[in-house]
Amino acid sequence: MPKVIAAFGEVMMRLQVPGYASLAQESSLNYSFSGTGVNIASALGRLGHAGYLVSTLPDNPLGDAAIAYLRKLGIDTSFISRGGKYVGMYFLENGFGVRPGRVTYTDRLGSSFNTADPAMYDFSTIARSIDVIHFCGITLSMNENVRGQMKTLAREVKANGGTVVFDCNYRPSLWGADGYTFAKPHYEEMLSLADIVFMNEKDALYILGMETKREDRAEQLGELIPKVAETYGISALSGTHRHINGDNTHSLKGYLYKDGAFHFSRTLTFSVYDRIGAGDAYASGVIHGLLQGYDPVQTVEFAAAAAMLAHTVPGDTPTAGELDILRAMGDHRSDVER
Amino acid sequence: MPKVIAAFGEVMMRLQVPGYASLAQESSLNYSFSGTGVNIASALGRLGHAGYLVSTLPDNPLGDAAIAYLRKLGIDTSFISRGGKYVGMYFLENGFGVRPGRVTYTDRLGSSFNTADPAMYDFSTIARSIDVIHFCGITLSMNENVRGQMKTLAREVKANGGTVVFDCNYRPSLWGADGYTFAKPHYEEMLSLADIVFMNEKDALYILGMETKREDRAEQLGELIPKVAETYGISALSGTHRHINGDNTHSLKGYLYKDGAFHFSRTLTFSVYDRIGAGDAYASGVIHGLLQGYDPVQTVEFAAAAAMLAHTVPGDTPTAGELDILRAMGDHRSDVER
Amino acid sequence: MPKVIAAFGEVMMRLQVPGYASLAQESSLNYSFSGTGVNIASALGRLGHAGYLVSTLPDNPLGDAAIAYLRKLGIDTSFISRGGKYVGMYFLENGFGVRPGRVTYTDRLGSSFNTADPAMYDFSTIARSIDVIHFCGITLSMNENVRGQMKTLAREVKANGGTVVFDCNYRPSLWGADGYTFAKPHYEEMLSLADIVFMNEKDALYILGMETKREDRAEQLGELIPKVAETYGISALSGTHRHINGDNTHSLKGYLYKDGAFHFSRTLTFSVYDRIGAGDAYASGVIHGLLQGYDPVQTVEFAAAAAMLAHTVPGDTPTAGELDILRAMGDHRSDVER
Amino acid sequence: MPKVIAAFGEVMMRLQVPGYASLAQESSLNYSFSGTGVNIASALGRLGHAGYLVSTLPDNPLGDAAIAYLRKLGIDTSFISRGGKYVGMYFLENGFGVRPGRVTYTDRLGSSFNTADPAMYDFSTIARSIDVIHFCGITLSMNENVRGQMKTLAREVKANGGTVVFDCNYRPSLWGADGYTFAKPHYEEMLSLADIVFMNEKDALYILGMETKREDRAEQLGELIPKVAETYGISALSGTHRHINGDNTHSLKGYLYKDGAFHFSRTLTFSVYDRIGAGDAYASGVIHGLLQGYDPVQTVEFAAAAAMLAHTVPGDTPTAGELDILRAMGDHRSDVER
Amino acid sequence: MPKVIAAFGEVMMRLQVPGYASLAQESSLNYSFSGTGVNIASALGRLGHAGYLVSTLPDNPLGDAAIAYLRKLGIDTSFISRGGKYVGMYFLENGFGVRPGRVTYTDRLGSSFNTADPAMYDFSTIARSIDVIHFCGITLSMNENVRGQMKTLAREVKANGGTVVFDCNYRPSLWGADGYTFAKPHYEEMLSLADIVFMNEKDALYILGMETKREDRAEQLGELIPKVAETYGISALSGTHRHINGDNTHSLKGYLYKDGAFHFSRTLTFSVYDRIGAGDAYASGVIHGLLQGYDPVQTVEFAAAAAMLAHTVPGDTPTAGELDILRAMGDHRSDVER
Amino acid sequence: MPKVIAAFGEVMMRLQVPGYASLAQESSLNYSFSGTGVNIASALGRLGHAGYLVSTLPDNPLGDAAIAYLRKLGIDTSFISRGGKYVGMYFLENGFGVRPGRVTYTDRLGSSFNTADPAMYDFSTIARSIDVIHFCGITLSMNENVRGQMKTLAREVKANGGTVVFDCNYRPSLWGADGYTFAKPHYEEMLSLADIVFMNEKDALYILGMETKREDRAEQLGELIPKVAETYGISALSGTHRHINGDNTHSLKGYLYKDGAFHFSRTLTFSVYDRIGAGDAYASGVIHGLLQGYDPVQTVEFAAAAAMLAHTVPGDTPTAGELDILRAMGDHRSDVER
Repeated sequence: MPKVIAAFGEVMMRLQVPGYASLAQESSLNYSFSGTGVNIASALGRLGHAGYLVSTLPDNPLGDAAIAYLRKLGIDTSFISRGGKYVGMYFLENGFGVRPGRVTYTDRLGSSFNTADPAMYDFSTIARSIDVIHFCGITLSMNENVRGQMKTLAREVKANGGTVVFDCNYRPSLWGADGYTFAKPHYEEMLSLADIVFMNEKDALYILGMETKREDRAEQLGELIPKVAETYGISALSGTHRHINGDNTHSLKGYLYKDGAFHFSRTLTFSVYDRIGAGDAYASGVIHGLLQGYDPVQTVEFAAAAAMLAHTVPGDTPTAGELDILRAMGDHRSDVER
Repeated sequence: MPKVIAAFGEVMMRLQVPGYASLAQESSLNYSFSGTGVNIASALGRLGHAGYLVSTLPDNPLGDAAIAYLRKLGIDTSFISRGGKYVGMYFLENGFGVRPGRVTYTDRLGSSFNTADPAMYDFSTIARSIDVIHFCGITLSMNENVRGQMKTLAREVKANGGTVVFDCNYRPSLWGADGYTFAKPHYEEMLSLADIVFMNEKDALYILGMETKREDRAEQLGELIPKVAETYGISALSGTHRHINGDNTHSLKGYLYKDGAFHFSRTLTFSVYDRIGAGDAYASGVIHGLLQGYDPVQTVEFAAAAAMLAHTVPGDTPTAGELDILRAMGDHRSDVER
Repeated sequence: MPKVIAAFGEVMMRLQVPGYASLAQESSLNYSFSGTGVNIASALGRLGHAGYLVSTLPDNPLGDAAIAYLRKLGIDTSFISRGGKYVGMYFLENGFGVRPGRVTYTDRLGSSFNTADPAMYDFSTIARSIDVIHFCGITLSMNENVRGQMKTLAREVKANGGTVVFDCNYRPSLWGADGYTFAKPHYEEMLSLADIVFMNEKDALYILGMETKREDRAEQLGELIPKVAETYGISALSGTHRHINGDNTHSLKGYLYKDGAFHFSRTLTFSVYDRIGAGDAYASGVIHGLLQGYDPVQTVEFAAAAAMLAHTVPGDTPTAGELDILRAMGDHRSDVER
Repeated sequence: MPKVIAAFGEVMMRLQVPGYASLAQESSLNYSFSGTGVNIASALGRLGHAGYLVSTLPDNPLGDAAIAYLRKLGIDTSFISRGGKYVGMYFLENGFGVRPGRVTYTDRLGSSFNTADPAMYDFSTIARSIDVIHFCGITLSMNENVRGQMKTLAREVKANGGTVVFDCNYRPSLWGADGYTFAKPHYEEMLSLADIVFMNEKDALYILGMETKREDRAEQLGELIPKVAETYGISALSGTHRHINGDNTHSLKGYLYKDGAFHFSRTLTFSVYDRIGAGDAYASGVIHGLLQGYDPVQTVEFAAAAAMLAHTVPGDTPTAGELDILRAMGDHRSDVER
Repeated sequence: MPKVIAAFGEVMMRLQVPGYASLAQESSLNYSFSGTGVNIASALGRLGHAGYLVSTLPDNPLGDAAIAYLRKLGIDTSFISRGGKYVGMYFLENGFGVRPGRVTYTDRLGSSFNTADPAMYDFSTIARSIDVIHFCGITLSMNENVRGQMKTLAREVKANGGTVVFDCNYRPSLWGADGYTFAKPHYEEMLSLADIVFMNEKDALYILGMETKREDRAEQLGELIPKVAETYGISALSGTHRHINGDNTHSLKGYLYKDGAFHFSRTLTFSVYDRIGAGDAYASGVIHGLLQGYDPVQTVEFAAAAAMLAHTVPGDTPTAGELDILRAMGDHRSDVER
Repeated sequence: MPKVIAAFGEVMMRLQVPGYASLAQESSLNYSFSGTGVNIASALGRLGHAGYLVSTLPDNPLGDAAIAYLRKLGIDTSFISRGGKYVGMYFLENGFGVRPGRVTYTDRLGSSFNTADPAMYDFSTIARSIDVIHFCGITLSMNENVRGQMKTLAREVKANGGTVVFDCNYRPSLWGADGYTFAKPHYEEMLSLADIVFMNEKDALYILGMETKREDRAEQLGELIPKVAETYGISALSGTHRHINGDNTHSLKGYLYKDGAFHFSRTLTFSVYDRIGAGDAYASGVIHGLLQGYDPVQTVEFAAAAAMLAHTVPGDTPTAGELDILRAMGDHRSDVER
């Protein structure tokens, strides 16, 4: 049964150098609009749900372009307010083989989303209209204004019986020096409000300051995640372990901890076309499985296959439908379909 | 000694999304014109023969574009008649790694070729002008009109002492439900008319309804192909076994059955850029080898190398000359040639 | 006060040769999706109304691409059903100066829209949900199936107190030989159902078979349009006279006949970038003016300015907002806005 | 009745900066292959004749690309020999408005055509196969080797009863200092061999050293052309007067002197997209009119319209068919054709 | 004799939608780097001088790309410091005919240039190395930090015997409400420091608050400019009057007031390809004429022709050399140069 | 401490077919300017030195474009003279997998560089301005004029205490039949003048005619290079062994022979995007390490990593900075950097 899902987050303009050249070598850019919330709302829309974005965009041609793009992605834009000065942007130069890609951000703290007055959102109407709300740690890192909005909206949704999803998504460069110390109380507050959480053992160790004597990351995960679940009263936790292989393929294995038990996907290995946004495809897969009542193993296998496919698609935002993902779960080798 | 070769078949417009995006993500398409007959006539032209296409194209800017494109491919277009309403089309979205490519056809049954009045072709002149005629199972699947034209032309060529080539090329989606039952008599008629046939054990099993107790496909081939040769009086049969490997490379091994004996190429393994049309490159290689009097092993090695190269070239239509293929037979590793 | 407006019509795929080359010279195409209904729904959406399209699209990657494109245009796609085989298409080669552009259609009679079973639409729900329905003569020319759907939906909307708009849009190539005779009863039926009609004196003369002794087209208009209004009980009629000047600029003058009186816009003269769809921009402007209660002269001036701007924008579909049009009404000379 | 026409001349690679940028600003080029002979053979092919090019191209990927391109243009390439080192090239930067375009040649004297051994051409077979041969003054300017080939071929064609066409096409930069003096005897030899000549009064004055007291160019034409006809025994002479107007449109008026009488086209005025090759379109129109037996005024009007259309088409080579030209003769204002 | 000229100003990233589409319609952008200082330094470099830019760029891939681009423009980048967060940006959507282009800025106040610490520049070394320094009113509008740097550098250059150029370039959107009042003292300070000033009567009226009873702008100019020269002790003032014509051509007439006398260029009328940066081409032309000792009329004619050419070139930055400009002074009609 | 380095060599225009198509299939080319000297001067510029090119370019738009491009690459162009007729060019068609790329040269012997009068260079000023001069065997193969210039400049630099670098870079196609015999004395003269030399055992065997009984190339290297060092008095020799693997990756191992001892890099294995110019990246890395006083192993590891990165970057010319190379030395697996 389709649900109504909203994601709260910033819309970023992605400006990508075509091919494998650098900004200094090229003279054109491909642009699109993305962000964790965008990816989640769009991916769940493609899986049959109604996906809304709660955000703010400037009332100028850039904002118009973003709205048109989000609509094209299948997102309902009726909870987006208009105002402020600009859209956050990032420039992407693709890597090749041993040469890594590069992301260059312009300043985003003054963006329409990050400077929006809370009065621009009607949080209680939103909360009453939706089944699920999604937040992420990138938004949490921005400023006190946005953090306050996140927490208010989370509480409203909870009060209305909705489900709160939180993806830890800790980015060191956004929190700055002493970031873990500064971030910890905010993460703890979000974890306490959340029903479904995306994280792995590193978040428990570094953000929450938990300790372990184990050295293997699988064992650390097994020890720490149940503690997190218990401490913050979280009903489902999920995440992945990624490994980058010598031949530039990536390997991914997902876990889902639910009702006191761990469930794992197979390890999937695959070539990568566009890595950005694959984590959001994974999260969307888990949310979809949980909402649809898939069994836990099917849920985590579905999510891992969704993430795998998202690595093969241009752009940040996942494009696979349920059928594509189910097919990818069955067989990794493909000839042209005709 | 160069021969005069004609292929009878539809010209398709191929509309390909550039790069790895989907039709919904992109806003431009690259187009070209192809089809089995186009590929065969062009490939044999590059191998030094005179390649004609027997077909019908609309008398409008699309038909003009197709004619210009075929001429660019080196095809002699003087046996192409003009009339009817449109060109068959297919849209191609490239796959990447584990994500398969997709082909979407528009309706082709009303195309100029499929609705052409037989009176538009002067089959007896054509038959007198050529050494070899090529047909394929895709054309056979279209409608009674086109099937009739195929058979008439095959008989005319045979009556003039020419060679008839038939590529089984069975496409399940074109024959519909109960396709094998419906197709069988038409295939049998074409096989009876043909001197050179492209097929493998699957065609014998499913189209011709032959039976075997063996399970290994190589063994099935060994058992069934000689029976087909005998039953329909075919002097040479050829085909390939393809395997798609875990790292997305393909492996290909060709066979040639002639004068009661099997001959095989080595198994070639290679990266794939554009898979469509590679089977036609193989067929062209076999036809060329037979026409030139290559020994059977050289013929099937040549054809396999031609097919391998065709996987590395953009577009459906093979572009390799004899020298390129001979070089590829010798060595698979390449540095830039300067 | 924004209204809910639906248009009933086919979605066409437009495949345009970039620049000024021909299909035979080029190898790439830009594609978009349009159609009279698309243009009207999108244009009225940009003017602040809710714009729906009532149509059918195939359930394949082309249909998905069309849906995404319509959403990007701001159209609500929830009245679009999915099924059938393909999308109607046209190829556009741009003209330059004295060389005219060319449009080549592929067969559209077998398209998803033209073969859709009426049962796929819930006309009574649609009729209850909207304030205005828009039809056009291109759809009327297709086949009996679609004509039946038009008339049913028009009656349902009228029965629910909604407004029926009909744009005569007679295309000789679509109606064939004896087209006027064949078309007349269908046009008469639509005119009888319509509240707002787009046409000019030529439609009255040729489709409706009216007669006049005048030779000047302005005078013919003055004589015939009031008769049409009276005969079919139409509350508002509107249309344009276009003149192509020696320097390739176009001149346009709109008329609106309402409450027994004619109102005219100034004659606007302007350079043309993309002429297709400009008539739909004009119609949208008139509908908007009537719905908003603009006075008649303001309505026709607004519509003419909307049409003028639509000639300066790439693509079939108008992109101007109300502010853009009001500004264009005031001043025709522009420097860059910064 | 279609004729067999060959043109003798060099194939040039045209490398054009897209849009209106300079070579220093851009990083990509569009390329095609052209030349006076190419333009003539292709244009006459589109008018229904068989068009051959007599030339030499290198046996490397550039030569292959040129052959494919010429075939796409509809030229029969069977009289083209392969050998030598390279293709002549020119770089084209488009002008805009008051800023002129720029053409930069690379060295062409060492090209395959200009260094070809006469033994590579079978002039007597060619001469027997064709009705008309076309030469131009650009080829005449190259070197003694090529000049010798021109004259030999002209004599062979004449001896076989064919028609010799010569387009004076004097380019000062190719003949160098004292060019007129050096060129005169070669031009006189070609004029003596020619049946149809393209030139105007400037060629008579500067190359042939004729004298006049008149100052108006129309009057000079009227005085000098009949003298040229008489002196060299030429049955038809034709050419144009071009004027570039203040608004960047061009005006063109053609003349045809035949059987002792002058015939003129109307003055055509039009916007220009790509000026290069328009003179060859004019010449093709005249040749076609003379071969088809058009009356002289129709011939020169047809040629002028062909030249006008060629200014509106990308690339050097005319693309119009007879129908396009006849339509352009009737009406200069165009709406999109659909 | 070539001079050493530096300009002080921000480098902007220009992101332009190709063709005539909007940001919402397109998916790619062309980018370049410009700004008044960039344009001046590059234009004077092409006129044979040594052109430096004094500015600050971030030490990241965007800054690297800007440096590479400036070097390509011929600018000496050795006075550019690296640091800060980002580059100012603007998005440009081209207009067509009656539809104006649109410029959308992102926030530039936090750019590397506008936040640079004065200690990052070695003003005394710069001042000793150059003959001329150029400033503009856009920089003056930014913030107190940058204004302070402008004034310091102007005084240092003056103290070293250099020439100070100031272009008023008042942009209302940058100064905000009460902008004239706020701007006046800063403009007065710059005018007092300047030897050469670009402005016209509007600047005198609105920024400096001067008064006149005349209504014609030419007469206002004649009255006010001499007063400005006298009040602030300026040796040369120059500027233009622009008129946008009904056919979208622009007309431009330059003035130069020097040694108590006015000198005017002819009124030039021309088609416009890219209007941005043309004012800087004009200023560069005047500076060049004054430095080279051209007579005043030649100077202002040269500058007007330089501005005219700059309207015909893609990008903000003028590309014409002295020869191009001299040729454009002579003749406005152009055929291709070959 | 940064040094001043100049390279003497030709600027080539590289015209590359985009993607994987052939010249006959495509219609556009990407162009850039490169050459061994260009690559060396640019690469060393990015490593912090001042990089000059000593060359000649035509004084036309192609020469202007080359100058702009070299400036963009960070090269100081003040030692480049202008004159002559054209730029050497090569066309590049990319290979894919088993299909090799192709390079087609046009004639370069008449280029501006190869026909430049020695008087156009002020060798003694150049020699006094620089620390290091770089030559390569490609230049040595051109003609006696250029060979003379190389030797003169090498002697001048040596006389001024500068360092002479010579890269053997023997290209069989440039020296023709009996090339080794013809080349030997010229190579010997350059080796006698050089302080740093790039070569491997093949150059010793084939050009210098040395002999060995060993068959393994590593052993041959170990035997022959010390002899070369001794014979010609060279203080440092360096080079690489490349191996192309079955999966189309390349493996590279560098050696440095200095002070009587060999030092080797690890064998690096990597995917290849653009192979051309990688040898120059290697050479730049060795030169940088020697100039900076890196220890020998660090030098050869640095150079090998620089070469590896150069294979992953579009274009001939290396783009990596010191930091990029140091990072690549540490770890070959990369995720996107954000």
